[in-house]
Amino acid sequence: MTFNIENSAKQARIASRQVAQLNTNQKNKLLLLIAAAIESNSATIISENAKDIDAGRAKGLTEAMLDRLLLTPDRVTDIASAIKEIVALPDPVGEVANLTLRPNGLQVGKMRIPLGVIAMIYEARPNVTAESAALCIKSGNAVILRGGSEAIHSNVALANCLHQVIRMEGLDPNMVTVIPDTSRTVIEQLLKQRESIDLVIPRGGEGLIRYVTEHSQIPVIQHFKGVCHLFIDKFADINKAVNILVNGKTQRPSACNSLETLLVHKDIADTFLPLAAKALLPAQVKVHACEQSINYFDDASLATTDDFNAEYLNQEIAVKIVSGFNKAIGHINEFTSDHTEVIVSQDTSRTQAFIRQINSSVVMVNASSRFSDGGQLGLGSEIGISTSKLHAYGPMGLSSLTTEKFVVYGDGQIRD
Amino acid sequence: MTFNIENSAKQARIASRQVAQLNTNQKNKLLLLIAAAIESNSATIISENAKDIDAGRAKGLTEAMLDRLLLTPDRVTDIASAIKEIVALPDPVGEVANLTLRPNGLQVGKMRIPLGVIAMIYEARPNVTAESAALCIKSGNAVILRGGSEAIHSNVALANCLHQVIRMEGLDPNMVTVIPDTSRTVIEQLLKQRESIDLVIPRGGEGLIRYVTEHSQIPVIQHFKGVCHLFIDKFADINKAVNILVNGKTQRPSACNSLETLLVHKDIADTFLPLAAKALLPAQVKVHACEQSINYFDDASLATTDDFNAEYLNQEIAVKIVSGFNKAIGHINEFTSDHTEVIVSQDTSRTQAFIRQINSSVVMVNASSRFSDGGQLGLGSEIGISTSKLHAYGPMGLSSLTTEKFVVYGDGQIRD
Repeated sequence: MTFNIENSAKQARIASRQVAQLNTNQKNKLLLLIAAAIESNSATIISENAKDIDAGRAKGLTEAMLDRLLLTPDRVTDIASAIKEIVALPDPVGEVANLTLRPNGLQVGKMRIPLGVIAMIYEARPNVTAESAALCIKSGNAVILRGGSEAIHSNVALANCLHQVIRMEGLDPNMVTVIPDTSRTVIEQLLKQRESIDLVIPRGGEGLIRYVTEHSQIPVIQHFKGVCHLFIDKFADINKAVNILVNGKTQRPSACNSLETLLVHKDIADTFLPLAAKALLPAQVKVHACEQSINYFDDASLATTDDFNAEYLNQEIAVKIVSGFNKAIGHINEFTSDHTEVIVSQDTSRTQAFIRQINSSVVMVNASSRFSDGGQLGLGSEIGISTSKLHAYGPMGLSSLTTEKFVVYGDGQIRD
Repeated sequence: MTFNIENSAKQARIASRQVAQLNTNQKNKLLLLIAAAIESNSATIISENAKDIDAGRAKGLTEAMLDRLLLTPDRVTDIASAIKEIVALPDPVGEVANLTLRPNGLQVGKMRIPLGVIAMIYEARPNVTAESAALCIKSGNAVILRGGSEAIHSNVALANCLHQVIRMEGLDPNMVTVIPDTSRTVIEQLLKQRESIDLVIPRGGEGLIRYVTEHSQIPVIQHFKGVCHLFIDKFADINKAVNILVNGKTQRPSACNSLETLLVHKDIADTFLPLAAKALLPAQVKVHACEQSINYFDDASLATTDDFNAEYLNQEIAVKIVSGFNKAIGHINEFTSDHTEVIVSQDTSRTQAFIRQINSSVVMVNASSRFSDGGQLGLGSEIGISTSKLHAYGPMGLSSLTTEKFVVYGDGQIRD
């Protein structure tokens, strides 16, 4: 399939001016119609998805990958529900923060506005197509979606629903572009359209994100991996510590906010580690332990530097005893992925010091790392997680798809 | 001179952890000592500057460029004063906004933190060296400064003052790095250090900024040019309109917030343009006018598309009569540099529509574009102006050198 990326991006830029001007009621109405269209076209979407599943099976995708790709009537309903949840979120556009009065009578404030055109580059899951489009529309942006080749039929079927509704409403269909070309060349071209695209959000494996970061002339939201640390301080409440460890590691190990490394203050190791070892047994967590901690576990292997860098994403954990608070901070600063770090301690000075000294995107006291998620932190739906500090840091909700312009109200003021 | 950029950037990253942890009193003390050291080393700085001036003269720099490069005792005092003004600014680091309580009892907020390491790439003026270093230190960042070859002796002399004080205070001198190598190769290497550098801020001509944008693997704050528009609506107060035009165009035409294009509603052209023509005479402003407006001016030339794209930076202006409000919006959207746009109108609906429909970084009602400046808008000292929407948009003060991390306070919460 040939597809003119430069022209598409320009058309998206033009459409972005229209979507930026829609008010909240107009955007919500559009999104509700899109949700309804997706539900009423469920059969078509599922039959198109079947083509992707067949192709995927022929290509030898694993069952896990096929499952992520698969759409069922319930999953299509879930996509529509996710869009309705976005309708219910507050609209960040137009909000003016801190309107102040300057000495010369000028009123100065900052007004939240859409970014313009957002490009999403992602892998298999077709629900990302509909949800990302909905988040971009709600925040007043145009969006260019480049999903993986595995989901191409499903993505195009979803795009057809969106375009049908957008056209019916008399709006510019270029506010949502699904790129039907799944070659890598298309990504390279896309990443050069810096006159038309304001932000690139890649979602997928580390390889994809590095590739996008290295090739892009457009700002990229980066989320390489989540190597989340849990530090059990010597002043920890032992019950909380055990619960937070088990929940963080075992509840959903495939999530990027799951724990990968446990650091234990030496003064509490004798009390805590036997309980921790026992608590990790039911989930059959494989332990990679340092020399000091290895004897607390049955069947633990000796932890290497690779273990402390690892994002296991399964029932495995690296464990290390540290001789003090500063050693814990030092270990985290050395191995951090800037995602999420947790301290368990009842001592206020130490929890405050941890919060102050660890500059990962989410820093927690006495809570499970699994709360490091847009929905759990109160942002509503999440469009991604940034582990680089520019523009957005941590889970990104609607307001991360906007920026602020200065607004200045005068009454004829001129400068001396 | 050989200089290992990769190693320097790594050392800056290490030093950044120390400066991030300094409290406001420590940072202010350091900055006051730096200001004092610059004043007491004034003679040395000026004699080093003389070498730059001699070299510049030999190289054939224009008198205007030599003047920008020149340091005098007064100008050195000004540099020290600028640092003292930065001391007086509020410290953004550590501020927690919107601490909210989630239904499960988690307290969630966002805390402002330094970005880490900032690289400044700039041209001639040596005051940028000291002021940028001071702004970065105040906001808890390490900084790498790569000034132009024209100012190399002055920059190194200033860096010596800074390092002397930083060492005296027992702090890591790598919090401020002045790169003594002025080759372009060094910029290319610098722009690859994305593991160590968080943000690049280029300051200078459009060529430098495009070069940096195209070569950088690190996020770049872009400020290409300022083509600021003034729209005189049909409901404008004529006196305000004339004053705002004259001030915006003639007060300091070399500044990027000066006016470059005047748009006039056709219904007010007959009243406004004769007064405007007269008011622009004393400054001998050269007018490039559209066919409809050319006869209002003596000696105007016919405006071309190039004129509407031009950042004149001198006493020249492009003038166009528009047939209505939407035509003005359309013209601005076509030619905008996303810097500053102004409407003069007494009609609330139209001023609100202008604010809503123009998404430049600064949008003004009934005020001179010359207020589009960090100091004038209340940010204190300005480290640059961003005309791209990511991270910062418009004049950037201290808080644009920071980001926000999530902080979460729990009491043992785990996820269901």
